Amino acid sequence: MQLIADNLHIVNSSVRNALKKLNPEPIKELVTKCEMAGADVIDINSGPLTRNPVGKMTFLVETVQSVTNLPVMIDTANPIAMEAGLKANKKTAIINGFSLEPVKLEQILPLAKKYKVDIIGYLLYPDGRVPNDASERFSLAIEILQAIQNQNIDQNQLIIDPVIVPLSWQNGSKQAREILDVIQNLPDILGFPVKTIAGLSNLASGHGYKGKRLLLEKTYLPMLASAGLSMALLNIFHDKTIEVGKACEPLVNPEVFSWAEL
Amino acid sequence: MQLIADNLHIVNSSVRNALKKLNPEPIKELVTKCEMAGADVIDINSGPLTRNPVGKMTFLVETVQSVTNLPVMIDTANPIAMEAGLKANKKTAIINGFSLEPVKLEQILPLAKKYKVDIIGYLLYPDGRVPNDASERFSLAIEILQAIQNQNIDQNQLIIDPVIVPLSWQNGSKQAREILDVIQNLPDILGFPVKTIAGLSNLASGHGYKGKRLLLEKTYLPMLASAGLSMALLNIFHDKTIEVGKACEPLVNPEVFSWAEL
Repeated sequence: MQLIADNLHIVNSSVRNALKKLNPEPIKELVTKCEMAGADVIDINSGPLTRNPVGKMTFLVETVQSVTNLPVMIDTANPIAMEAGLKANKKTAIINGFSLEPVKLEQILPLAKKYKVDIIGYLLYPDGRVPNDASERFSLAIEILQAIQNQNIDQNQLIIDPVIVPLSWQNGSKQAREILDVIQNLPDILGFPVKTIAGLSNLASGHGYKGKRLLLEKTYLPMLASAGLSMALLNIFHDKTIEVGKACEPLVNPEVFSWAEL
Repeated sequence: MQLIADNLHIVNSSVRNALKKLNPEPIKELVTKCEMAGADVIDINSGPLTRNPVGKMTFLVETVQSVTNLPVMIDTANPIAMEAGLKANKKTAIINGFSLEPVKLEQILPLAKKYKVDIIGYLLYPDGRVPNDASERFSLAIEILQAIQNQNIDQNQLIIDPVIVPLSWQNGSKQAREILDVIQNLPDILGFPVKTIAGLSNLASGHGYKGKRLLLEKTYLPMLASAGLSMALLNIFHDKTIEVGKACEPLVNPEVFSWAEL
């Protein structure tokens, strides 16, 4: 299971200020810290970048790649910014992401073919609604795969995100189980070893968890790993969670594990 | 998932000394601490009790039950001691346990019927060998179930232990995966919702884990819970592991969970 840093995020004020001034230093420093903390991939969540999307995304990708060789996820809903990021990319990029929303199918998904990069597909309804259970997610995954095939994109470029919801939602506990079912059974349902990603920070967002956020994250992460999750998107500075994420390896990947890694 | 304290164990010198002198105080104190630490059941591991098995096991069960109403597991290979424990029991007792070893089938298993108590069945070969994979464990589980049926014991009294082995064994990582497969699929294989138990302390016993014992335990425990484990036998004083064990509840039991419990 790869660990993806979700820390380079526009909601972070130091990122927002650096982006406003096109000042690379705070971003370089953050990315270097993410890599040292154990990140396997850096997610670049720029928000929509309505003003100067090309200049700002180019700046972000170039700045990140000036200090690391790690793959980057380009995380924006703005197709102009997305394409600028893919053009600026000199190493490995992943599109984060698309869904069945028509604008995404038309303007984001074709970029996966054009730039030959992996792309994350969210199991959401076209109107953005979150599915209620595993069965609805399997149906959406089949539609996502069809969309990929309709555009003659290699299915191996697809990474599915089943969309973790807050545990505090009325059906949050049930949804947490259903997500594990989806991750475990999606390869059988789709007929190939599809990669999966999940945003761990979603689990304890919102209210109702009484300060147990870190505890819930480090408890759910091994469950996700055990179900076969390929990539976990998370706060890479939650060191107790990361330690657990790394310790999942000998327990989920007998073939590739070496004790020296733990 | 219930948490079973494995702390009342003859290898613990304070337990050994208390038993030698039939001094109830250290045992009462230990059991009270186990209950306060979150134990749902107390395992009484007396060893074989070759001298005075009846007197010593009666003393142990009476002493434990004088300070707690929690169920007890009577954990000995000595049938004389086992029956003495079941006779002394005034609350809920569980036999821990039997296997396909002939002496256990003949002398331990019948006690489950005689005293109408649950009994743990270990997935081991008759000569004590540990199975190599899930498939061997499923075959052993079917034989265990047949043994139960042959003695006209209600199958709902059966609790299966798939036998966790040290991760440091040559095939330890693979075995850790196979155990999860067994726990998840045993109800389908046996055709009823059979209960399961696993001894977490086995995972990192022996050498080769470089001081990562607690980390491995708290990483594997959510995987076991997610696979559907009914009972985890563990060191109830490992508070970080216990905290994780309790946090599994909202993530595995949507129906019964209340936020107030976390």
